[in-house]
Amino acid sequence: MLNEKMRALGETRSAIRELFEFGKLLKAERGEENVFDFSIGNPSAPVPDCVNESITKHVSDENVHNYTSAQGDPSARKAVADFHRKRSGLEITADNIYLTYGAASALSAVFLAINAGNCEYITVAPYFPEYRVFVESAGGKLVAVGVKEDFSLDVDAIAAAVTAKTCCVILNSPNNPAGNVYPKNDLQALAAVLKEKSRKYGRPIYIVSDEPYREITYGAEVTDIMTVYDDTIVCYSFSKTLSLAGERIGYVAVSPKAAFSASLYAAVCGAGRALGYVCAPSIFQRVVADCMGKTADITIYLKNRDLIYDIITRCGFECVKPEGAFYLFVKCPTGCPDFFDICKEEGILAVPSESFGVNGYFRLSYCVPTEVIERSAPHFEVVAKKCGLK
Amino acid sequence: MLNEKMRALGETRSAIRELFEFGKLLKAERGEENVFDFSIGNPSAPVPDCVNESITKHVSDENVHNYTSAQGDPSARKAVADFHRKRSGLEITADNIYLTYGAASALSAVFLAINAGNCEYITVAPYFPEYRVFVESAGGKLVAVGVKEDFSLDVDAIAAAVTAKTCCVILNSPNNPAGNVYPKNDLQALAAVLKEKSRKYGRPIYIVSDEPYREITYGAEVTDIMTVYDDTIVCYSFSKTLSLAGERIGYVAVSPKAAFSASLYAAVCGAGRALGYVCAPSIFQRVVADCMGKTADITIYLKNRDLIYDIITRCGFECVKPEGAFYLFVKCPTGCPDFFDICKEEGILAVPSESFGVNGYFRLSYCVPTEVIERSAPHFEVVAKKCGLK
Repeated sequence: MLNEKMRALGETRSAIRELFEFGKLLKAERGEENVFDFSIGNPSAPVPDCVNESITKHVSDENVHNYTSAQGDPSARKAVADFHRKRSGLEITADNIYLTYGAASALSAVFLAINAGNCEYITVAPYFPEYRVFVESAGGKLVAVGVKEDFSLDVDAIAAAVTAKTCCVILNSPNNPAGNVYPKNDLQALAAVLKEKSRKYGRPIYIVSDEPYREITYGAEVTDIMTVYDDTIVCYSFSKTLSLAGERIGYVAVSPKAAFSASLYAAVCGAGRALGYVCAPSIFQRVVADCMGKTADITIYLKNRDLIYDIITRCGFECVKPEGAFYLFVKCPTGCPDFFDICKEEGILAVPSESFGVNGYFRLSYCVPTEVIERSAPHFEVVAKKCGLK
Repeated sequence: MLNEKMRALGETRSAIRELFEFGKLLKAERGEENVFDFSIGNPSAPVPDCVNESITKHVSDENVHNYTSAQGDPSARKAVADFHRKRSGLEITADNIYLTYGAASALSAVFLAINAGNCEYITVAPYFPEYRVFVESAGGKLVAVGVKEDFSLDVDAIAAAVTAKTCCVILNSPNNPAGNVYPKNDLQALAAVLKEKSRKYGRPIYIVSDEPYREITYGAEVTDIMTVYDDTIVCYSFSKTLSLAGERIGYVAVSPKAAFSASLYAAVCGAGRALGYVCAPSIFQRVVADCMGKTADITIYLKNRDLIYDIITRCGFECVKPEGAFYLFVKCPTGCPDFFDICKEEGILAVPSESFGVNGYFRLSYCVPTEVIERSAPHFEVVAKKCGLK
C-alpha cells in the first residue's frame, strides 16, 4: 500500500551513500584514524573566505531569510548571467538562469522539463549513478553508451544510439568518476552529429551539461559547450567549487540560442514547482551574488591527485591520470573476487563501479585531507599484495 | 517537444506568486508606500535571535557546509524527535524524522511515497493551491471536499468521499487560507471514520498533517494529530514560525504507530531522492538543532489580525475571525464583478479564492508590517464604497 519503487530507492540507497554511512559506523568502531574514506565527494578544501564573509554580512539584512522569486533573486541570477555572458559571448540574461538546490535538483528539473513523453536520455558510461534515478523519475529512459579506453567520447557510438525518442545527451566534463575533460574537437564532432540528428528527427536534441567540477582542473581547458552547440542547458552546483555541498545551491542556465529557449526556461521553472522546490536557499543566493566566479583553494586537489595517483600506480593498480574533478577511477585487480572486502578489512572505502554503469573498476574520491591519503599508502600496499598485484 | 504540463506550470505560476510578482512591479511604478501587498505569506515577524546566533556560531565550524546524511544530521533529527516525543508521549526517534526543503518538499515526498498507483488524496476546500500541483506530480488525484459555513470539518462529507483508492486525507490546521483551527472532537470524529474506512478497504488511509502554522494561534489549542490517529504523517516547515521562508527548511515526521511505519519512512526518503533532494541545507540543520521549539515573536500577528479584522468588518465585508495562521478569508461583495480590479486600482493586492478551490472569497495575508495595514484602511473603504457595501 506504498509506492514500492520509492521504498526500494529509500531502502537501498546509492552505493556511494551506503558506503558513506558504513564509513561513519566503521570510524565509530575502529577510530577515525583507521578508516580511509574515499567514498563521497564531500569537498575537503576549506570554504573560501568570501562565502562566510557574505553570510556574516547578510545574516542580519532585513528580509534576507524571506521567499525570493521562484526562479531566484534577480541580483543572484544577474551575477550568474554576467559570468556566462562574459565566458561565452552570448546574450545571456537573468531570464536564462534558474537557481536550484544544487546540481541534483537542476538536473531533475531539466529532465522533467524536456520529457515530451517516453523520452530517451543518452549518457556515457561510466556516469554519475543518480542520473538513472533522476531520468526515471522524470518518466524517461537512460541510455548509456560506452566510451573509448581513455574515457574520451565515442561520438560514433553516441550517434548510433540516437533515436526519434532521444531528447538529450547528458555530458559531465570534468567527469565524475573518470576525471577526464572532453577536448573541444570531440565536443565539436558531437555537436555536428546532434545538429544533423536534430534535423533528421525534427526535434532539438539538447545537450544537458552537468558541470559541478567546471573549475576543478589540472591544466586541461574546459570548453564552454554553449559556444559549440546551441541547444545547450547547463546544470551547475556550487557544492564542489565553493565547498558548499550540504547547502544545496546551484543553477540551470538555458542557452538563449536553444530551440524554444523561453518556453524551455518556463518548463524548467514549472518542473521545479512540480518537484516541490520553492526557491533556492535565500541567504546562499546572496552568497552566489557575492562569490560568483570565485573558488575554494582547489590547488589542494592537485596535490592530492598526484599523491594518490602515485600510491595507486606504485602498488600496481592501473588507472588514467585525471585531468579534473577529484576522483580516481581505477581498474580492479583481476583474479581477486574479494577485492572490496579486502579493502574494507584495511579500512579503505572505495566505491565499486557497477553503479556507474561499468564493471571492473572502483572509484576513489580524493577530496580528503592529504594526510588521510598519506596514511592510506601502506594499507593500499597490503590490498595490492593480497590481490597478487605485487 | 517539451513537457507541456511543466511549461504550463512555469508560464502560469500560482495565483499567489503571480500577484507577488505583480506587486513588485506595482511598487516600482507607484512607490512602495502606495501598494498594500497582502498576497504572499512572507513572515513579517523578525527572525528570532536564536536563528542568527546559531548561524553566526556555526558558520566557521569545520564541515558545517558539507553533505549530511540524506535524511538529515542525527543531531537535528534528534531535536525534532525529542520535541514530538515530549508533545505526543509516543516513542518518536530520529529514525522517524526526515529533514526537507520546507513543507513543499515534505508534502511532495510524502505524496509520492504513499502513491501505490492512481491514488486519491482527499483534502477540504478551501485548500492551499499547491496541494493540487504536488498531488498531480505524484501521479495522484486531488479530491476536494467542502467544509461547513464556519470552515470547520464536515466529517460526513469526508467519509462519503473515501473510496478504495483513497490513500490519505490532507489536513492543514491552523488553516491556510481560512485561519481556523480544528477542535479535538472533530479530529476524533474524523479519526473514527478513517479507522473504519481503513478496515473496510484493507489499507491504511493516512492523515497527512500540513502544519507550518502550528505555533501561530490566538488562543485556540492545536491538537497533536498523532495522539488522535495512528496513521499520521506530519509535514512541518520552519518558514513561518522562525520567519525562514526563503531558506527552505522543514521536516516529515512519520508516526511510529503508523501502518508499515519503517517502510513508509524509507519510501519518504526514497521519494526525496527521486525528487532531486540531497539533504536539507546543512547550516539550517544546525539552526533546527539549536532552535527547535522556539518561535519568532508571533504576538505581532495577533495585533495585525485584530487590526485588519476590524478594518474589514467595519467596511462591511463578511469574514470569520481567524484563530490561527496569518490569513483573513473574506467574502467578495456580491454584485461587484470588478472587485479585484477595484482593489488593484486602490493598490490592494488580495488573492482571489478560485485557486483555493472555492468561489466568491479573497485572501489577505496579514503578515505584513502593521503600518501597512493601518495605511490600507482608507483604501479598503474606497473599495467598499465602490462595491456598494457602505
